Amino acid sequence: MNLQYHSQLLESAVEEFSRLPGIGRKTALRLVLHLLKEDKKLAEALGNSIIRLRNEVKQCKICLNISDNEFCHICTDSSRDQSVICVVESIKDILVIENTQQFRGVYHVLGGIISPMDGIGPGDLSIPMLEERVKKGGIKELILALSATMEGDTTNYYLYRRFNPYNLMITTLARGVSIGDELEYTDEITLGRSILNRIPYEAKT
Amino acid sequence: MNLQYHSQLLESAVEEFSRLPGIGRKTALRLVLHLLKEDKKLAEALGNSIIRLRNEVKQCKICLNISDNEFCHICTDSSRDQSVICVVESIKDILVIENTQQFRGVYHVLGGIISPMDGIGPGDLSIPMLEERVKKGGIKELILALSATMEGDTTNYYLYRRFNPYNLMITTLARGVSIGDELEYTDEITLGRSILNRIPYEAKT
Repeated sequence: MNLQYHSQLLESAVEEFSRLPGIGRKTALRLVLHLLKEDKKLAEALGNSIIRLRNEVKQCKICLNISDNEFCHICTDSSRDQSVICVVESIKDILVIENTQQFRGVYHVLGGIISPMDGIGPGDLSIPMLEERVKKGGIKELILALSATMEGDTTNYYLYRRFNPYNLMITTLARGVSIGDELEYTDEITLGRSILNRIPYEAKT
Repeated sequence: MNLQYHSQLLESAVEEFSRLPGIGRKTALRLVLHLLKEDKKLAEALGNSIIRLRNEVKQCKICLNISDNEFCHICTDSSRDQSVICVVESIKDILVIENTQQFRGVYHVLGGIISPMDGIGPGDLSIPMLEERVKKGGIKELILALSATMEGDTTNYYLYRRFNPYNLMITTLARGVSIGDELEYTDEITLGRSILNRIPYEAKT
């Protein structure tokens, strides 16, 4: 259904909404008609928060996490272990890891992952910035928390080679059977790895 | 998953997006991170078009269709039959009917439908405005193009009673088996109505 709107304003709002991922023209129209029907304040708040977000949000000058200030709340948190850096692909990964409440170190956002297919090489990532942090000293461990994909493995290997000369521990996330998963439905590569990397059984008492 | 953002700007953008229908916090976050990653212009264009839409779009002073000008493109189109008014619930219905390219008359947007359950009575709809149009004369037919629901039927009945005193034809949309539907899967009420309202067979030659 290719509707004709005959209103430039409606047309352009639908157009802009449908540029967003996962939003087609039909959903865009629904959102736009909703905004037209609801209180004016709703549309203004949405519009302004989008513009402010893009213009005012900053990147932390240490780790590239997003931040309302020059340095993010994690890098400036003195209770966190500044000697352990968890290297992630994107900001979203920080949100997800923080949500586990299992990590008390700091982060470094690569801004991507090495992917020759997409034309992304090491030069496109914030690796020199990470190297500066390491060179300054005081870093004991780099945790490579990248995706368990071929691109993730490639990036892990590259980072390992690059940071091995510095005297620090380099670790990656444990791979294995997801908690709650039945063995029957676990893919064989994961299962194979989790047998190779088996750990001593800890009896819960 | 209830993520903590630690950025007021991010938080408020996610908040505003998730007020939209069908968009939860997870989708909102995805959209916001997309806007952060993409060109600044994309976010500005979206933000501005939302604000402009709400501030600048007008309602046609005749039919309440949305319009960039005082009168909409349908009411000002001299090739359309101004004596036939198609009464619809919302702007979206105009878009859908226009898309069929089967109607050459004009519209009137009620702005809702009589629904005692939702506390919407005739006084909440643009019925007086429609009555003014009819009183001015020159209207031959009102087509009641409302939903085939109980609320639609109630509204049809109310409009019929109200506009019957004026000397004009009042019609409603034909109800019947959808084109392409198998009888087996047609609900019995629709099927029953379509038997009662059967029409002479026109042989295609």
